[in-house]
This record gives sequence, structure tokens and C-alpha cells, in this order.
Amino acid sequence: MAKSATTSTAYTDALRAGEGFDLAALDPRSTPGFDGDKAAGEAALAGLGKRLAELQERLYAESRGGGTRSVLLLIQGMDTSGKGGIMRHVVGAFDPQGVEITSFKAPTDEEKKHPFLWRIRKALPVPGDIGVFDRSHYEDVLIVRVHDLVPPSQWSRRYAQINDFEATVAESGTTIIKVMLHISSDEQKERLAERLERPDKHWKFNPGDLDERAHWADYQEAYQAAIEKCSTEVAPWFVVPADRKWYARLAVTNLVLEHLEALDPQWPQADFDVEAEKRRLSLMP
Amino acid sequence: MAKSATTSTAYTDALRAGEGFDLAALDPRSTPGFDGDKAAGEAALAGLGKRLAELQERLYAESRGGGTRSVLLLIQGMDTSGKGGIMRHVVGAFDPQGVEITSFKAPTDEEKKHPFLWRIRKALPVPGDIGVFDRSHYEDVLIVRVHDLVPPSQWSRRYAQINDFEATVAESGTTIIKVMLHISSDEQKERLAERLERPDKHWKFNPGDLDERAHWADYQEAYQAAIEKCSTEVAPWFVVPADRKWYARLAVTNLVLEHLEALDPQWPQADFDVEAEKRRLSLMP
Repeated sequence: MAKSATTSTAYTDALRAGEGFDLAALDPRSTPGFDGDKAAGEAALAGLGKRLAELQERLYAESRGGGTRSVLLLIQGMDTSGKGGIMRHVVGAFDPQGVEITSFKAPTDEEKKHPFLWRIRKALPVPGDIGVFDRSHYEDVLIVRVHDLVPPSQWSRRYAQINDFEATVAESGTTIIKVMLHISSDEQKERLAERLERPDKHWKFNPGDLDERAHWADYQEAYQAAIEKCSTEVAPWFVVPADRKWYARLAVTNLVLEHLEALDPQWPQADFDVEAEKRRLSLMP
Repeated sequence: MAKSATTSTAYTDALRAGEGFDLAALDPRSTPGFDGDKAAGEAALAGLGKRLAELQERLYAESRGGGTRSVLLLIQGMDTSGKGGIMRHVVGAFDPQGVEITSFKAPTDEEKKHPFLWRIRKALPVPGDIGVFDRSHYEDVLIVRVHDLVPPSQWSRRYAQINDFEATVAESGTTIIKVMLHISSDEQKERLAERLERPDKHWKFNPGDLDERAHWADYQEAYQAAIEKCSTEVAPWFVVPADRKWYARLAVTNLVLEHLEALDPQWPQADFDVEAEKRRLSLMP
């Protein structure tokens, strides 16, 4: 079936980390693919809801008719980069019946007994669903690399293992959208200060956040390596400037929308005799 | 701490199935607790979002500070009664990070090997979460009773087992909100006809839906029995007239809101030295 005339790849093209990508050169306050201001961005975001809802319902319906496709939206970013806001405002706009968020924290004792991808495999989306990862297996080459939580010989092998794994996942029918929310060090400082200033935000703060902030440069280097080594044809990285929250939300929503449009999921055919059922119903009291 | 001045129990009081409740006497087109029309109802619903978001975040935050309270919203109703719409429009308005929907279908082979409450226990909400059941253990005294899927001596014991179970759940800190979406037979006929009329709704239809419709009176009797026997002090039933979808959504949202207001969850205290952390942050580059 022909693609809808509105199919666009504007954000996909503008945000994809390609050959020679340089994280340090990307301005966290920029708004690739969009040239309006905050008010225009919020209006644009609100205008996407209906199309998104239909495409998500089609994906879900398709799976009920035997389809095996699904979407995996993976979100990474430094503390305060807005992961929670993406969950609330972007993922929150999807129909919750077809969404499964998995939040990956420090591995449990049981998880530590298994290879690092074990807990990831268990959380992959079922057909028809949009799976969402709040952090992911990339932590195993980010925090693990910055603090050498396993020997360098071990974490350095993981990039290739991740690429193999993601290729298998993509092959099985899951469209992978990997997003890094890219904030500046100054913006993080402001956001941490706000969490300390407001008693209703204290619960989001942990003194360990400042210990991690002290490793800012190491984390940027680890992100650069992960993006460089793991932005593949079947599972590219998208780096979203995130100092402006309204833009990050608009961009991630558009990334999902563009990928759903490319999938172009279809309503399944009825597997029963529609006219016969209409007659049966009409004869009932 | 004193309850907010806006705390209301209007819907809780209007919809609670109390002593002598009679399902057949409740008009599915009525709008208890609300005397406006559809437009007014939609406006009223939109106005609840902010308060609901804050209360949900407080409940979630409270659990991060060690709180153990949670909410369980359980939705039952005949086919086409609007369960999916409640998931999309009511549950979809919550922050998805604190929500877990469990959809209970016909039990799997593994589930059949266990007592009927086994799969229910596994799906109970964790502290801070709003758990949502799309169908529930009540199917074990509804479809199971209508079709005698187990001997009557067995299903008839389940009402007491359910009451014991729910009492334990409530005791552990979970506020249980049990909702039946009450539609008329005529309304179901119209909604099934619409599913047959529209190709984009065929995937929601199953010829078995008409077989079940033929048992309408038996189901009403089974609902009456479940509500009568299991509307307890700690876990009452709320019966929501649902022929008007806008009203059902408004009513269920208000039921959740009123229960959250009664819980009155609190921001947790910081467990670190706020001023010391502010100084540390200010000294960082």
C-alpha cells in the first residue's frame, strides 16, 4: 500500500548520528528540524496526537491479526536530561494499553549473575507494543566504563555484543529508536540546583548525583564512544539536543511518528463472515 | 496534615453499591453526581488533570521515601462497555511511570494449574503505583458462573475467598477501587453493530461476542451476585452507568481523584543535608 502523503523523515534525518558524529560539536540548545519558538513547538506537538494515536492503534490491531512488528524506544541521557519528562509527556500521550515502560536501575543480585543483556531480552516489546526503555544496556558501556565496574577488556567487547544483539532484535520485527537526550553541563547544574531549592523535588535528588556530575567529561567520552560504535544501519542513534525541554519532547514524538509512518501498519482483515455476523446480531433481542 | 479544602466524596458516595443494591434498577444512561451535559462533562474532565497529576506524583514520591501505599483500580463490564476507552482516556491521563495495566484474558495452561487468585496476586501494584486491572478475579465468578466452567460448589465458595483476599490486600496498604461499567443491552447491540460496520473496528470483534450476548440475563445476574456479596467496607463496588461514554470517563476519573485525595500522600523529607549539597553543587564547575 502506498505511504501516506504526509510521511516525513525530517527529524530522523536531522538527528541521526552518522559517520564522523561529534557529540561535543552539537549545541544542546539547538532545535534541528524545527525553526519555531517554544509556543510554536508546543502547538506543533499538540497537533501530532491524533495521527500518532491512529498509527499506534493500527500497530496494535495488526498484531491481533497475526502481525509480529513492534517498536522499541530507548532513552538515555545524563541525570536531569529529561528522561522522566519524556516518559510523562511523550510516552504518556500513547495509549497505555500498547505501551510497556521498563526502567533499568543498578542491576540486582540476580541480574548480576547473568550476562548483561539477559534482563534486556526479558523486557523486549511483544508484537504490537511500543516498548520503552528508561536507561538500557548502554549503561553497561557508560557508568560501567566510567567507573570500570568490570575490567576494560570486558566492557570494550560489549559494543560488538550490543550490535549483534540489536541486529537480532531488528531482524525479529522490532523497530529500534535509540535516543540520547543531550544537555549541557550548565543546564544540569541549574536543574540540580532547582531540585535542591524545591522541597517537592528533594525526593528526586541523591547526593550521588553530584559524585556522578564530577565525572561529566568521562561520561561525554563514554557517550561519544557508544554512539560512534553502535549507531548502525539497523539501529542508529538519534542525539536530541535537550536543554530546551519543549524541543526534546517535540523531537522524540516526531521520531516515533516518522518511524510508525514508515512501518505503515494496516488494519487486519476480518477472519469471520461480516455479513453473517450482522444478520445474527440483527436477529438478537 | 489537614485534608485539602477541595476534598470531595461526591462520586464515591453516589456510585457506591451499598446495602440492597439492585443493578436492574440503575439506569445506564443516568449521570449520578453530575448534572451537566456532554460538553460540560468533557470540560469538567479536562479540569481534573492538574490535580490528579500532582496527587499521583505525591503517591509515587511518598513510596520513594519508604511509603508503602498504592492504588488498585479494577475495571469490569460487559463486552463493549468501554473498558478500553477507560484505559485510553482515564488511565492514559496518568503519568505512565507510575501505572501498570494488567489485562486478564482466559487463563493460560500454566495459570489453570494454580488457584484462581494466583495470577492476581502477581499483578498487584507495588508501593507508589496505580495498578489497573482490565478484567480481574471477578471473571472467576462471572463467565465461570454463567458457563459453569467449574462446578457450582466451587465458584460459590469464591465470593468469600475474594473478600478475604481483598481484605488482605487493603490491609497491606492498597486502596482498592472496583468499578463495574454498566451498559444496557440496547447500547451493546449498537456498539457491536458499529464494530461490524467499520472495517477499522473489525479486529475488535469476535463471533464469540454474540454467543456471550445471548447470555445477557445470566451475566446481569452474575454481576448482581458479585456486587451484592463482594461490596465490602474495605473494598466496595462502584457501579458506573456507562451508556454515555463521556460520563463513565468523568466518573471513574473522579473516583480515583477522590480516593487519592483521601490518601493525601505527602512529599517525603530529604534524607540528606540540603544546605551542604547546595554548597557542594555551587563549588562545581
